[in-house]
Amino acid sequence: MMNRLDRSIGALVDSYRFHGLVNHSGGDNLPSQAAIQDILSGLNELLFPGFREYSSLGHDTLQLLTAERVHHLARELIEEVEKSVGFSVRKGTFSCGNRSCHAVAELVVENFFEEAPAIRSALAMDMDAAFRGDPAAKSAEEVILSYPGFEAIVTHRLAHFFWSRDVPLIPRMMSELCHSRTGIDIHPGATIGDAFFIDHGTGVVIGETTVIGKNVKLYQGVTLGALSVRKEQADRKRHPTIEDDVTIYSGATILGGETVIGRGSIIGGNVWITESVPPDTTVYVSPGDQVVQTRH
Amino acid sequence: MMNRLDRSIGALVDSYRFHGLVNHSGGDNLPSQAAIQDILSGLNELLFPGFREYSSLGHDTLQLLTAERVHHLARELIEEVEKSVGFSVRKGTFSCGNRSCHAVAELVVENFFEEAPAIRSALAMDMDAAFRGDPAAKSAEEVILSYPGFEAIVTHRLAHFFWSRDVPLIPRMMSELCHSRTGIDIHPGATIGDAFFIDHGTGVVIGETTVIGKNVKLYQGVTLGALSVRKEQADRKRHPTIEDDVTIYSGATILGGETVIGRGSIIGGNVWITESVPPDTTVYVSPGDQVVQTRH
Amino acid sequence: MMNRLDRSIGALVDSYRFHGLVNHSGGDNLPSQAAIQDILSGLNELLFPGFREYSSLGHDTLQLLTAERVHHLARELIEEVEKSVGFSVRKGTFSCGNRSCHAVAELVVENFFEEAPAIRSALAMDMDAAFRGDPAAKSAEEVILSYPGFEAIVTHRLAHFFWSRDVPLIPRMMSELCHSRTGIDIHPGATIGDAFFIDHGTGVVIGETTVIGKNVKLYQGVTLGALSVRKEQADRKRHPTIEDDVTIYSGATILGGETVIGRGSIIGGNVWITESVPPDTTVYVSPGDQVVQTRH
Amino acid sequence: MMNRLDRSIGALVDSYRFHGLVNHSGGDNLPSQAAIQDILSGLNELLFPGFREYSSLGHDTLQLLTAERVHHLARELIEEVEKSVGFSVRKGTFSCGNRSCHAVAELVVENFFEEAPAIRSALAMDMDAAFRGDPAAKSAEEVILSYPGFEAIVTHRLAHFFWSRDVPLIPRMMSELCHSRTGIDIHPGATIGDAFFIDHGTGVVIGETTVIGKNVKLYQGVTLGALSVRKEQADRKRHPTIEDDVTIYSGATILGGETVIGRGSIIGGNVWITESVPPDTTVYVSPGDQVVQTRH
Amino acid sequence: MMNRLDRSIGALVDSYRFHGLVNHSGGDNLPSQAAIQDILSGLNELLFPGFREYSSLGHDTLQLLTAERVHHLARELIEEVEKSVGFSVRKGTFSCGNRSCHAVAELVVENFFEEAPAIRSALAMDMDAAFRGDPAAKSAEEVILSYPGFEAIVTHRLAHFFWSRDVPLIPRMMSELCHSRTGIDIHPGATIGDAFFIDHGTGVVIGETTVIGKNVKLYQGVTLGALSVRKEQADRKRHPTIEDDVTIYSGATILGGETVIGRGSIIGGNVWITESVPPDTTVYVSPGDQVVQTRH
Amino acid sequence: MMNRLDRSIGALVDSYRFHGLVNHSGGDNLPSQAAIQDILSGLNELLFPGFREYSSLGHDTLQLLTAERVHHLARELIEEVEKSVGFSVRKGTFSCGNRSCHAVAELVVENFFEEAPAIRSALAMDMDAAFRGDPAAKSAEEVILSYPGFEAIVTHRLAHFFWSRDVPLIPRMMSELCHSRTGIDIHPGATIGDAFFIDHGTGVVIGETTVIGKNVKLYQGVTLGALSVRKEQADRKRHPTIEDDVTIYSGATILGGETVIGRGSIIGGNVWITESVPPDTTVYVSPGDQVVQTRH
Repeated sequence: MMNRLDRSIGALVDSYRFHGLVNHSGGDNLPSQAAIQDILSGLNELLFPGFREYSSLGHDTLQLLTAERVHHLARELIEEVEKSVGFSVRKGTFSCGNRSCHAVAELVVENFFEEAPAIRSALAMDMDAAFRGDPAAKSAEEVILSYPGFEAIVTHRLAHFFWSRDVPLIPRMMSELCHSRTGIDIHPGATIGDAFFIDHGTGVVIGETTVIGKNVKLYQGVTLGALSVRKEQADRKRHPTIEDDVTIYSGATILGGETVIGRGSIIGGNVWITESVPPDTTVYVSPGDQVVQTRH
Repeated sequence: MMNRLDRSIGALVDSYRFHGLVNHSGGDNLPSQAAIQDILSGLNELLFPGFREYSSLGHDTLQLLTAERVHHLARELIEEVEKSVGFSVRKGTFSCGNRSCHAVAELVVENFFEEAPAIRSALAMDMDAAFRGDPAAKSAEEVILSYPGFEAIVTHRLAHFFWSRDVPLIPRMMSELCHSRTGIDIHPGATIGDAFFIDHGTGVVIGETTVIGKNVKLYQGVTLGALSVRKEQADRKRHPTIEDDVTIYSGATILGGETVIGRGSIIGGNVWITESVPPDTTVYVSPGDQVVQTRH
Repeated sequence: MMNRLDRSIGALVDSYRFHGLVNHSGGDNLPSQAAIQDILSGLNELLFPGFREYSSLGHDTLQLLTAERVHHLARELIEEVEKSVGFSVRKGTFSCGNRSCHAVAELVVENFFEEAPAIRSALAMDMDAAFRGDPAAKSAEEVILSYPGFEAIVTHRLAHFFWSRDVPLIPRMMSELCHSRTGIDIHPGATIGDAFFIDHGTGVVIGETTVIGKNVKLYQGVTLGALSVRKEQADRKRHPTIEDDVTIYSGATILGGETVIGRGSIIGGNVWITESVPPDTTVYVSPGDQVVQTRH
Repeated sequence: MMNRLDRSIGALVDSYRFHGLVNHSGGDNLPSQAAIQDILSGLNELLFPGFREYSSLGHDTLQLLTAERVHHLARELIEEVEKSVGFSVRKGTFSCGNRSCHAVAELVVENFFEEAPAIRSALAMDMDAAFRGDPAAKSAEEVILSYPGFEAIVTHRLAHFFWSRDVPLIPRMMSELCHSRTGIDIHPGATIGDAFFIDHGTGVVIGETTVIGKNVKLYQGVTLGALSVRKEQADRKRHPTIEDDVTIYSGATILGGETVIGRGSIIGGNVWITESVPPDTTVYVSPGDQVVQTRH
Repeated sequence: MMNRLDRSIGALVDSYRFHGLVNHSGGDNLPSQAAIQDILSGLNELLFPGFREYSSLGHDTLQLLTAERVHHLARELIEEVEKSVGFSVRKGTFSCGNRSCHAVAELVVENFFEEAPAIRSALAMDMDAAFRGDPAAKSAEEVILSYPGFEAIVTHRLAHFFWSRDVPLIPRMMSELCHSRTGIDIHPGATIGDAFFIDHGTGVVIGETTVIGKNVKLYQGVTLGALSVRKEQADRKRHPTIEDDVTIYSGATILGGETVIGRGSIIGGNVWITESVPPDTTVYVSPGDQVVQTRH
Repeated sequence: MMNRLDRSIGALVDSYRFHGLVNHSGGDNLPSQAAIQDILSGLNELLFPGFREYSSLGHDTLQLLTAERVHHLARELIEEVEKSVGFSVRKGTFSCGNRSCHAVAELVVENFFEEAPAIRSALAMDMDAAFRGDPAAKSAEEVILSYPGFEAIVTHRLAHFFWSRDVPLIPRMMSELCHSRTGIDIHPGATIGDAFFIDHGTGVVIGETTVIGKNVKLYQGVTLGALSVRKEQADRKRHPTIEDDVTIYSGATILGGETVIGRGSIIGGNVWITESVPPDTTVYVSPGDQVVQTRH
């Protein structure tokens, strides 16, 4: 057996050389999936102290814990952001100018922590929208402890920060970690307004150039997608705009970069939309096309 | 950099004070997500000894292992249930009467273990339904080791026990842990009869006041939901009733608290139902509304 | 409390004896979920060295690391495959002939590592298909680091190897681990050609006897399923055939073992198909059956 | 490099075959060092609840915790004792009669837990002796939390139980784990009376056939050893007898199986004794043989 | 077996009630051994950054890492010091005055970190003494990475800080953790001057009221102990004074609170001293009392 | 509190700059204590397969396991040896000639594994010496599982290999890890012949330039040390030579680089020797200088 395995080892090592696309061993380093996962967990603990621990936090240890967490996360983030920015520089899609990539990473991370209280404020509004929007929600605490739709918007607001600073890979790694846990796939490039809520959430897809207003509510299986998927159109707005106070029920599909769902509209379950809908409009599937047969 | 971070730390600590809704630091304690996850794993090992371990269990160590597990899980459960019940007492939605919350938690947990053999019997029927209902199932062992639909009903029967004893937070935390792993979202309040099976399962949503009979089978993407989502109707029956021997195919949506799917009916894929269906009825989408174009 | 718990312990231990189906304690051993998860992680690291680690790999340590990983994974795989094959032998569905189950397991695992470079080549084509097929994909590295559709095809090509060698349980355990993480449910029995890509992916179901050609692309929520789910038809081809260069948009459902989607066809979102479609055909839902009402 | 390593691997595997003494691979199993270490830790927690945990134990969880620990430790102990007894049976130094080794192990372990309260009583006396005997001891809690001499007698009373039931290997593994942590080497065969205390302790050696009375106190570096170390005398009493109320100061050496230190005697530091000492005797080194030179 | 174990569990739980001295379950909490061990490791990393990690530290992450470590260790230390001080208050040996025990703990810990740079300066001198004093030392790095005598003085200078602030239990727990690892037993109460070095170290004992000057060097097995061990003399100076520039060779024993070893003296191996020695004196064992016999 | 801690953090970071000796942050990297500990554990498992695991090893998995371990340990060792050699190069005490330090490290490690079977042969002789030399030893397995003297010679033979190849730091880190666990301090430079045994062992010190023949046996507390400890004599032979078949009892001290203990001699307990002893000589302490007083 050892001889056969030794030949397989040789063949695998050879294959590492020839399929450059599938392998970056020996090259420069990429951000680590495990590190991004740890950072996401740490940011959640920083944003919601007392919700992820085994026991309650005394008021007086909270200050020490916050300082420890910020310094720890800053160090981890700088390392991963520096690797990501360096990747962009090698790809030729980013330049650090006359700064080092490390200095650029430090600036991004400093700025992130300055924004963190504002992100908390936005999440407080999201949490409130979830509580108000779901009759089954018994308390605000239940939303924070168990709602996948709330986890999705928390992750999105974090990932979107790094996306908006031109940090590659990390935002997408964050959003896909959340996709894996919640079944909700929000591209980190999407722009999402205040008080956003997704109920149940499995199967929701929100594309890169989507723009969503305030007080929007989605249900499971909603797609906000592109009509065209040609690579050469990657720089255009390919996904729809959803104005304030819109509700979109489960399984609805809204496609196209010029499609606008007007303020206050209600999109029914399973509806398929590729053109704009004016404000205060209700769209639903006509129930007439179903066959009902009773056996005897 | 240190000065900027120090200012961010101060701003975060301040924000903990002002957004009461998003933070319970320094207050009383809530059940821990990590503890609920450990408890769910432990209960799975208790219910299916020999299926989650690396090696087979001798008959004679099973008795010692069961005693160890029950005492361990009892201790963990009492602690988390006590925190949950205390949360309800603070919210004013529950009273422990002249007992301590700890004593109430002990009673719930004692009762849980008394019910555990009956839960195992119910799950044996569910497992059998899965094996009979899926042509691809090669063995009962395969169902227990790998079927997400079986994992979902196991978790539901556990979560529902605590829901039915007015324990808050924990049932929902359990069901959302399962939702994250399986894509199946069953509210712990739902009432589900014997021999229940969900195949594939991703995207299934079963609402809080749903009532499901015996021998019911669902496919992926089925929604058993509410017509109205106004908070003031939270106390009503908002979700449908599914009678015995009903099969509901993928993507079907059944809404409304007064909607009843009669015994023995078959609901086809993608069907949208908001009114009751009599027994022994088949409902399916008319295939006529699709356009077929061939290119030349 | 102790007395009540002691009685519950006794009742549970008794129940282990009577519900044979739900319990295999004391019997022979089954493959371990935790071991299969470790093996899947290890195989990913073997196939994509440098993508899962914290830091970059020097060229010269890659050889040592590969040898270590192959020997480690070989040992783990032989153990789990031997348990799986032994399970089939006890079920009467497999015979090791005049070899021991251990020897059979060794042959399967040796053969697996001989195939590993070819699996890598196939995955390079899948990765390329993902990069070309998604306008939002910024780099090949992003695909490997974060695309659930790529994770699904990686897992499928591994699971399918063991399926094709008649190893039970393990392939399904692998595919369900992936289903849990990605929401994509590909039965390990499915035959899938080169350059396959699933975008977003949540809710995709691909059945056991599905046959898929080259350059096929699926979106979220696509079902390739069976018309009949009667157990006695388990040996037939129950799921459709998708020929080369087909694209199937989100939510489409294609059912039946004799249903063939001809080469180059495009199946639109939410389409429901139970009969064959000729080559170069486009099928889409007629948009006429939706009601649009504007409020005043 | 790979070729040279492959040759070394072959040579090592060959060497496993030829040096039977240094290798038992493929043979029957021996008790595990890691398991014995876990068991020792667990027994310490069982004997001194509340002293090894992070937080205080409520009175009411103590009962559940004790039941969990006893069942867990019983299972672990039975497994290791069975392996040890099986080793003796293979060596021909022990027979399980008409019982299985597993049954013999169960009896030993049941008996151990029946003795556990009596061991606790003995240790309470040892703890008291430590507190009274050391002016630097500020509290009983300090003794339990930090005194190596107390850790040594705790371990000895546990190891001696298994020694006295003819369980091989495990007692010696326990005593050497303690030797490693404390520098105190008590052979598990030694017989030690109530209220025993060793201060500081590093370098103490107490041989297999030593007999020690009540209220005996030793300091660091004391040896209670053998005069002859010939293998053929292994069955004789080779180590001294120390009667009640004896104190032995640091570095003293007392040798020989017929050497008796009479009740109430005091043996001074660095004294070397190979013959018996009558009761109520003080022995010390004459200070006359040291040279004192002052430099100018 | 279960019945016998259940009886043993009951007997153990009963014994927890009766042997108050050996058990504090249900009472207030004591500092945790595991926490003190973590704190000691953390303080070592803080004092010697770059020596305990896997990889080298960039200058620029050192600042973030230091801030993280200080805040983390401050939080851990405050918790353990508060428990220790509370223990003293319950014993009646300490009063927090009009402050809370938590406030007292905060003051001690703040003060500790203010002293930390001075402790580092002292340790730099100790390190230098080790390097100069051992011909086998090849580099300063070797001392920090591997010398038990250096580990012992590091631990002592930390433990002595807390001893000098009347924090009970913790200093002794620290010194005994070090005793276990190094075989060197320094009571945290001992006063030790600059540039102190212990070579090899196993078996060294330095008592509570010992006073040691500058540039003192000890070898393995040296005891600086008490003549009287009566509890009622616990408040007196019971251990010797060692003036500056003294060297004490292996196995020497120096006893008594009024015994002073004068500046610059050299105490030879195995010497036994109970009275003062003037400055610049050499004391050694007369070699005349050994018997040399040659066999023929 | 935060302000005071912030000042302390600043002061600590400043101190890292000024005490160069105590800190190497930001410089090149040193071998990691944790890595050396893992390597030592791994080498023990490689040398004694089946003795450190929980369960017995089948003959057929041993080959795979050995290949995995050798490749893993080779990778770990090369990394740590490279760091160590680089340290020597920076100190100017070593030159890699026209090779890279990595290439030098690879050669050392390749050579190590080629020597590994010979090290195993030597350890088989040591094990046999231990079993024959201790009447209390019941089996060879007991020696391997629990004898600190055996652990010490295993570690020494490994550390000495790297010492003899001019690898700095690592050998000393290995020997001090063993010193911490066993109380036996063997400098890795010492030359030790076949069939060496140390009984009990606590307090044994064997200096850097000691030379020991075959069949030598030591007891606890034996020192083989230097007469002069002046740094300028570091290159001389400073420690004694012990010829074949010598036994040295507990507490004996033998000093000086020109001191030779002749073949077959026996050195009694507590003897102090600074000059050579001819072959076949017995040396012991005259028992006449002890005072025996009986109280009445």
